[in-house]
Amino acid sequence: MNISEKIQALRILMQEAGWDAAVISGTDPHGSEYLPERWQQRKWISGFTGSYGTVVITRDHAGLWTDTRYFIQSRRELEGTEFELHPLRVPEAVDYPEWLAANLSPGAVVGIDGECVTYREAERMKKALQELNATLDSRPSFLNAIWNDRPGLPMNPVFILEEKYSGKSTQNKLERLRKQIKGQGCTHIILNSLDQIAWLFNIRCHDIPYNPVAVSYVLVDENDSTLFVTPGKVSENVRNVLREQGVDVMPYDSLPGVLRSLPEGTGIMADGNTLNYNAFHNLLAHCAVHDLQSPVLHDKAIKNPVETEGFRKAYLNDGLALERFFFWLEKSLEKDVILTETDVAKKLSWMRTLAEGAMGDSFQYISAYGPNASLPHYSPNPATALTLLKEGLYLIDSGGHYLYGTTDTTRTVPLGPLTQAEREDYTVALKGMIALSRAIFLKGTKGTHLDMLVRDPLWRHRRNYGHGTGHGTGHFLCVHEGPQDIRMTWRDQDILPGMVTSNEPGIYREGSHGVRHENVLLCHLLEENEFGTWLGFETLTLCHIETSPLLVSLMEPSEIEWLNEYNKSVYTKLAPMLTYDESIWLKMKTAPVTV
Amino acid sequence: MNISEKIQALRILMQEAGWDAAVISGTDPHGSEYLPERWQQRKWISGFTGSYGTVVITRDHAGLWTDTRYFIQSRRELEGTEFELHPLRVPEAVDYPEWLAANLSPGAVVGIDGECVTYREAERMKKALQELNATLDSRPSFLNAIWNDRPGLPMNPVFILEEKYSGKSTQNKLERLRKQIKGQGCTHIILNSLDQIAWLFNIRCHDIPYNPVAVSYVLVDENDSTLFVTPGKVSENVRNVLREQGVDVMPYDSLPGVLRSLPEGTGIMADGNTLNYNAFHNLLAHCAVHDLQSPVLHDKAIKNPVETEGFRKAYLNDGLALERFFFWLEKSLEKDVILTETDVAKKLSWMRTLAEGAMGDSFQYISAYGPNASLPHYSPNPATALTLLKEGLYLIDSGGHYLYGTTDTTRTVPLGPLTQAEREDYTVALKGMIALSRAIFLKGTKGTHLDMLVRDPLWRHRRNYGHGTGHGTGHFLCVHEGPQDIRMTWRDQDILPGMVTSNEPGIYREGSHGVRHENVLLCHLLEENEFGTWLGFETLTLCHIETSPLLVSLMEPSEIEWLNEYNKSVYTKLAPMLTYDESIWLKMKTAPVTV
Repeated sequence: MNISEKIQALRILMQEAGWDAAVISGTDPHGSEYLPERWQQRKWISGFTGSYGTVVITRDHAGLWTDTRYFIQSRRELEGTEFELHPLRVPEAVDYPEWLAANLSPGAVVGIDGECVTYREAERMKKALQELNATLDSRPSFLNAIWNDRPGLPMNPVFILEEKYSGKSTQNKLERLRKQIKGQGCTHIILNSLDQIAWLFNIRCHDIPYNPVAVSYVLVDENDSTLFVTPGKVSENVRNVLREQGVDVMPYDSLPGVLRSLPEGTGIMADGNTLNYNAFHNLLAHCAVHDLQSPVLHDKAIKNPVETEGFRKAYLNDGLALERFFFWLEKSLEKDVILTETDVAKKLSWMRTLAEGAMGDSFQYISAYGPNASLPHYSPNPATALTLLKEGLYLIDSGGHYLYGTTDTTRTVPLGPLTQAEREDYTVALKGMIALSRAIFLKGTKGTHLDMLVRDPLWRHRRNYGHGTGHGTGHFLCVHEGPQDIRMTWRDQDILPGMVTSNEPGIYREGSHGVRHENVLLCHLLEENEFGTWLGFETLTLCHIETSPLLVSLMEPSEIEWLNEYNKSVYTKLAPMLTYDESIWLKMKTAPVTV
Repeated sequence: MNISEKIQALRILMQEAGWDAAVISGTDPHGSEYLPERWQQRKWISGFTGSYGTVVITRDHAGLWTDTRYFIQSRRELEGTEFELHPLRVPEAVDYPEWLAANLSPGAVVGIDGECVTYREAERMKKALQELNATLDSRPSFLNAIWNDRPGLPMNPVFILEEKYSGKSTQNKLERLRKQIKGQGCTHIILNSLDQIAWLFNIRCHDIPYNPVAVSYVLVDENDSTLFVTPGKVSENVRNVLREQGVDVMPYDSLPGVLRSLPEGTGIMADGNTLNYNAFHNLLAHCAVHDLQSPVLHDKAIKNPVETEGFRKAYLNDGLALERFFFWLEKSLEKDVILTETDVAKKLSWMRTLAEGAMGDSFQYISAYGPNASLPHYSPNPATALTLLKEGLYLIDSGGHYLYGTTDTTRTVPLGPLTQAEREDYTVALKGMIALSRAIFLKGTKGTHLDMLVRDPLWRHRRNYGHGTGHGTGHFLCVHEGPQDIRMTWRDQDILPGMVTSNEPGIYREGSHGVRHENVLLCHLLEENEFGTWLGFETLTLCHIETSPLLVSLMEPSEIEWLNEYNKSVYTKLAPMLTYDESIWLKMKTAPVTV
């Protein structure tokens, strides 16, 4: 079926169901960012491949709501279809619940797949529709009726992450979690976030592209803890290890029955931000649900010493792969080898596999040459990928999983002569990244505060970027994780020692070029004095920053000092493991900038 | 009565009323920051003279809740009484509603004066007390029974601020307000904020120390607008001018009757953040109250061209007074004249009266020498004021009202040799002030974002201050006004062109010294480009910044450049109006710093 036929089929389905609108979210029953094919409902219906958005179909309108990151991409992908783009995160943006409220008639019915909408999101819809007296009608998997070749549940094996990597036993983690549950006056907690489950039980799996997690639920009470997962995925050996740590395994689809049979009034913690509407609102209707942020979200974000040491090792190996890649790229272009954006991305992905404990890419690489780099979330495909020329800027945002950590690095490099605008943008964006790298801040500081440090140098040059500055990163887990982030929008979450967060300002010029510099930072306690407790960052990323594009006149002496020290440490740490030719090359690349 | 007798009398009153606790707020029926004596209930019961705090009396506890600004002062003032300090804005602070919830028995009764508690604050108490099943009992003016010499309502004459100063007629302002009321689906609005009333009706009065406003309420509907004010305060002439602009005058105490007689279900806008609990909850119980921020708050904050030109004139005259004062101070100390903190404050206050249109001090001056300057809100009294010596730092935070504007300036000056610590703190705090002065930011930026720019230079030196960075300033109105401020705490309010906001970082060392630098900034639109709309600041304040305490090595070249340009502009604008001796002195004071 093409997009138009799919919309048509859905409208017939809507008519039969008595729906005036259908909302198709971009998530799965687990509130995931990346989805197994089974739950890529938004992509199936619209053809839009970005990672953020919501589709709304009414009788006479098909709309996609997405944000600044995807404006250019979505316009391309929706071209020729009935879909209209509704831009978010712009002044006067109207989000889809408010749009529905303004465009439906009183008493309208809005259909959703309640398994694939979080409780919080459903409540937001309800609130917007209240005045209209419109109602939500949840039918799990309603697309099954028209999506004939819909994929099934992923069936990859679950494996154990040994304590020498995780740093903490499941037993220990459960002990702490039970105290936290009790502290909230509850006896149970339900978890549906796949990375929280993976962290808590020290398990990993390849159910989801780029995210080493298993499709599952978890229920923990004062005595028992249960992993709900498709049985064929758990070997006898894994089952035994889990049992030793106090974890039982039950089938994935037995969860609804178990939840329904909890005693009336059971005090259960559930995070309405991630738990789906169906479980929260229907299956737990008879319980006393405490809608609270999962304590696992916080504990997972504070890396333990084994995990932080693992991150350092991951960035060392990742740095080797990156430097070998850039060396290869430069030499190949010198020899006039024809290379496209996809060719070089594949090369880097392969180079990452060479390290001990390498476990694949941590997200789909953004390999973007020239104007393509102005799309902050561009992914090349072989059919349309540009060929790299010996001029302009090339941006690559990539990362790998290792048993001991997960990486995420962006570098923008010159392939030949640059324009003045490219050099200015390169320099100004770098000033932003340096500002956060060397920030010193009081305990209690939020990401929103730190965000300003990064934007200030850009703003002084009247440039900006339409995305956040930083996201948390998991330890051999999702490359994007909460609860912290660094962005202008307020989030009442401290940046705390042990948190690993990216630092990735950029500047994008549609149709011309794009620049982004990304390092990943580990937060440390520095000292206490009469003014409070002071925190700062250690840069984990080890990959040189190109100095040839810099306009040194735009930089302050202390910024140049930071850059020279950073490049020097990259050389010092990586050179011993490189070939002679590579290390000579890296020595040159990391030569100090002089004013 | 002494404090102990007052507490005793109140406890008897509480027993009679069946109250388990009494809450005595720090405000009046108008949500004011500074209060007529009549409503200084917190000061009467506790002896604490700070501008922020709440008193709670139970059968066995007397507590004062206040924030970081007042820790040192309140400890001094409460010494020897039963009162205990409950610190706010510190980690693990427990505010009084939560303290009540933790310390009262189920079903307890908490007594309040519902006229002197905002609706929002009462709701906050109710929420905290909900689980305890405790109730609020509001009895307006309950302290009358034990406060025998309680002052009456202030009785100062209301006068008209001419349009050549206000820049906009009351008729125009009312026209816009009525559109805004209608836009919210209402027919009425009630205003109780005295500065909003003064701005809307272009009236001023001296009912409240330092705030040129009249104790009054306002009710506006589609056709009429009424000022409720004690009749003797309005002359025939003022009454006629108001009538020409469409404003009727009614007695202050007729408001309750008028509100009660509004038709059932009247759609009325009321701002629960400022309107008192009694009016909002009791007098308007039969109306459809729309709890919304008053549009007057926003419109008043965006200064019109006549007002901004007035501010420039005010800062010119204020700068002359300040420079003459500092010249006099330096010469007097050279001649070994004995001067106390109060002596010099009086001198400056007098110097401000010399300007055309001068209307008195805009707040109680902070005139603080040596260790006293470590109390950010210190006010000297003649009995304990320190004598100025020819060493260390002297801080004066002062301002004046003029018919054409209101000023607020802090300068910290050396009276002789300084310690290294004093010079470092002086320099580092100044770096913070400079950062905001030259900020460039996107439309949509909040005060919380800008706050970080000011703290960053301090934090890099591991120093901080426990107060906000900036507050809005009224035009010949309250020196502190909303809706904008610049502080770490999130407030969802853009900083917009036309807003006038202070910029006042400091560093305080208990028992040693304090530094604060304060200029006032006017926000301007700079330009629009592909990234958005860019805003920046014009510094209104004209008073030289002392360069002799600076540790130039701690400053960046661009900071020195800003400082030199600022001091040069002070000299250029003020020198023509100074005496020959004064201008020679100012030339020397504003000589450029060289690296």
